[in-house]
Amino acid sequence: MILLGMDTSAVAASVALWEDGRIIGESFVNVRLTHSQTILPMTQNLLNACGKDISQVDEFAVSVGPGSFTGLRIGISAVKGMAFGTGKRCVPVSTLEALAYLLIGQECIAVSAMDARCQQVYAATFLVGRESVQRLTEDAALSIKQLWEQLTEISSDLPLILVGDGAQLCYNSWESDRVLLAPEHLRFQRASAVCMAALPRRGLSVEPAQISPQYLRLPQAQRELLQKQNKI
Amino acid sequence: MILLGMDTSAVAASVALWEDGRIIGESFVNVRLTHSQTILPMTQNLLNACGKDISQVDEFAVSVGPGSFTGLRIGISAVKGMAFGTGKRCVPVSTLEALAYLLIGQECIAVSAMDARCQQVYAATFLVGRESVQRLTEDAALSIKQLWEQLTEISSDLPLILVGDGAQLCYNSWESDRVLLAPEHLRFQRASAVCMAALPRRGLSVEPAQISPQYLRLPQAQRELLQKQNKI
Repeated sequence: MILLGMDTSAVAASVALWEDGRIIGESFVNVRLTHSQTILPMTQNLLNACGKDISQVDEFAVSVGPGSFTGLRIGISAVKGMAFGTGKRCVPVSTLEALAYLLIGQECIAVSAMDARCQQVYAATFLVGRESVQRLTEDAALSIKQLWEQLTEISSDLPLILVGDGAQLCYNSWESDRVLLAPEHLRFQRASAVCMAALPRRGLSVEPAQISPQYLRLPQAQRELLQKQNKI
Repeated sequence: MILLGMDTSAVAASVALWEDGRIIGESFVNVRLTHSQTILPMTQNLLNACGKDISQVDEFAVSVGPGSFTGLRIGISAVKGMAFGTGKRCVPVSTLEALAYLLIGQECIAVSAMDARCQQVYAATFLVGRESVQRLTEDAALSIKQLWEQLTEISSDLPLILVGDGAQLCYNSWESDRVLLAPEHLRFQRASAVCMAALPRRGLSVEPAQISPQYLRLPQAQRELLQKQNKI
């Protein structure tokens, strides 16, 4: 079984191939370049490097959010196109849950946090074990302060490890000994983690048309309009 | 400062770019394809995906062994060529030390083990902390049994985590509760870890001509010849 995973939810973008319990390839970039220009050549190059053809992929997995609105649309559109073109199904994965999978093997509370600008983060927490990830809180758009209050309610002796592109922001804001920062190579979205998060939910795969982004909040233009209209 | 790291020491092959404290790109494959055909296109594609040119790389890092004789020669030759061509210096990195860097952030004893065939492994142990890796034993070619004996002499309450393509082999042989297996996404050589291992030794960079593979044992043909001559 070959699974192709993709993540373009933030500045980092990546694609990975998973075959029979192993990551057989992964390409990752974390530079401010347009994903729409880089992600399909990256995918083609990865397939070539692994000696595989797109027609050999059995299933697709993609981060559906939260994250950058444009970023999510690019990855989801690319995966929908590939799945539709090859007649395969897709597994939608929460970006925050995929981040938690980067910490698998360590016993900890993963605090997945993505920078949502304006001192806000998209965040969720997970109980991470040697071989499993269990969700503790739902994906939400929170202020950094609200996330901290949420964490203080978790009673556990396990270390709290911040992961995601909002990790450093939270870490700097809180200055608490209770909280650790995931190391650089495990801090940002990786498509291999999207594959890992997709594997236990293969039964939840859907037709490509059924995949849609999970933004968790309205786009900036709509928020500004509603603000002008005094509706929020 | 841009650092390009490469590892082709075993079945997995990878290249990574590190800029100013961050991994800006990494390509990884773990399939039985010839590294000599894949590693330079992978490097070119990664540079393109990151919007960089080979002339912008300030320094190179490469796994110099132990590992597959042919694999090491390919990666070292490629890096030597690129460094010579661009007039830059190289940081040689132990493959086993780079493996230990994959576990950075977890407090543990990293047991780096690469399959050397015939129930032997290339192995070394490291004390891994939140932000550091400290060598405990030298790189050596050992039987799986000898490595176990070496580990029993380490008195520490920290978990022993096996990493490398010999990890599963050792894990299956020992069947000990004391030993854990690194999760799939952190088990195999990654060029990002070669970069991480190279950073603290940038002062030890050398001219490309000075890099040479560290095989730790004679090639099979020479071993067989010496055996015939009753010299070993």
